[in-house]
Amino acid sequence: MRISQLSRESTVPVATIKYYLRERLLHEGQLTSATQASYDESHVRRLRLIRALIVGAGLSIAVTRDLLDGVDAPPESGHDLLGIAHHALIAPTAADVDTTAVDALLDQWGWDTHGCDSAAKAAVAGAIDGIRAAGFELPEGMLDTYAGAMHTVASAEIAGVPTDSAEAAVHYVVLGTVLVEPLLLALRRLAQQSASRARFGAMPL
Amino acid sequence: MRISQLSRESTVPVATIKYYLRERLLHEGQLTSATQASYDESHVRRLRLIRALIVGAGLSIAVTRDLLDGVDAPPESGHDLLGIAHHALIAPTAADVDTTAVDALLDQWGWDTHGCDSAAKAAVAGAIDGIRAAGFELPEGMLDTYAGAMHTVASAEIAGVPTDSAEAAVHYVVLGTVLVEPLLLALRRLAQQSASRARFGAMPL
Repeated sequence: MRISQLSRESTVPVATIKYYLRERLLHEGQLTSATQASYDESHVRRLRLIRALIVGAGLSIAVTRDLLDGVDAPPESGHDLLGIAHHALIAPTAADVDTTAVDALLDQWGWDTHGCDSAAKAAVAGAIDGIRAAGFELPEGMLDTYAGAMHTVASAEIAGVPTDSAEAAVHYVVLGTVLVEPLLLALRRLAQQSASRARFGAMPL
Repeated sequence: MRISQLSRESTVPVATIKYYLRERLLHEGQLTSATQASYDESHVRRLRLIRALIVGAGLSIAVTRDLLDGVDAPPESGHDLLGIAHHALIAPTAADVDTTAVDALLDQWGWDTHGCDSAAKAAVAGAIDGIRAAGFELPEGMLDTYAGAMHTVASAEIAGVPTDSAEAAVHYVVLGTVLVEPLLLALRRLAQQSASRARFGAMPL
């Protein structure tokens, strides 16, 4: 199909498609003349994916390109899959973040992240520091509750990684990590509404 | 104390403090002459809070002002607390989002959000749509796993709302909602690393 039909099928404007081509997010079509190319279903699928990452998940062009590069060239080891998704998503943290307290928590929870990228650990340390810096104190036991809930989530997610092909596995891990974040946060709010209604109803404080 | 000392105590530059004063995020000091004001510990605490919201949680000046307005003027009903936090955080969604599917899920999970702001419901519907639009399919039962984990989290959070004063309650709900989001997402990644290591080790895919 021509670019105009690709635009109709994907509901992405022609100018935006050309921008994604220039930015190497979308693969080139088959040249049919010096100035025209032909596109197929693989371009429609890829555009859907690009839009989900940029519009849906709010990622930048650069981060989206990193993720798509990972999808296009799957790593050899299943464990390295996570590295691609996490590397693109976690903002680089200052090298001097002290993760000693997080190491103690990992021991306590029985989580083994030996040999993994330390950025996730630094992100947890940074989030805890941010809460403390705001003068906010987590109630007793709340951090363990959060860890337990995320352990349940992550175990189910990793158990579901398909192993029939590296492409399918990368797709699952990268998209699952990125696209599920807004879902989890929205579900938390909805669950808070339900719990708040059960506890407070319309009673004055 | 003078503004220069307030700057040293809070490690916020004088120009930034003046900006927060102009934007009405920080309350004015006590005037000691036509051109000088005196600040106290309440200003140091407030600056810590403002920095946590803007630098820590990455909120805009406008959203931060909405949240702080809620903290300054607590609502009469405990249940309205959530409204303040959620209203400031959830991006306005198009009025035409179809939440029928989410209503069915709420029934299934036994969550009652009757009379609550519908933005959280629309956010869940939008997140599910975004996942589907990307061509990503959640494994069987995964949505229930996510809901169960968030129900555990939200129940503990709402149970911990302090009721000794409206100020304390608002502080807890607003900050807890905003500041815990990065913590939950970072814990999920760390838990994924641990689960991935247990399942894949260093084995090739």
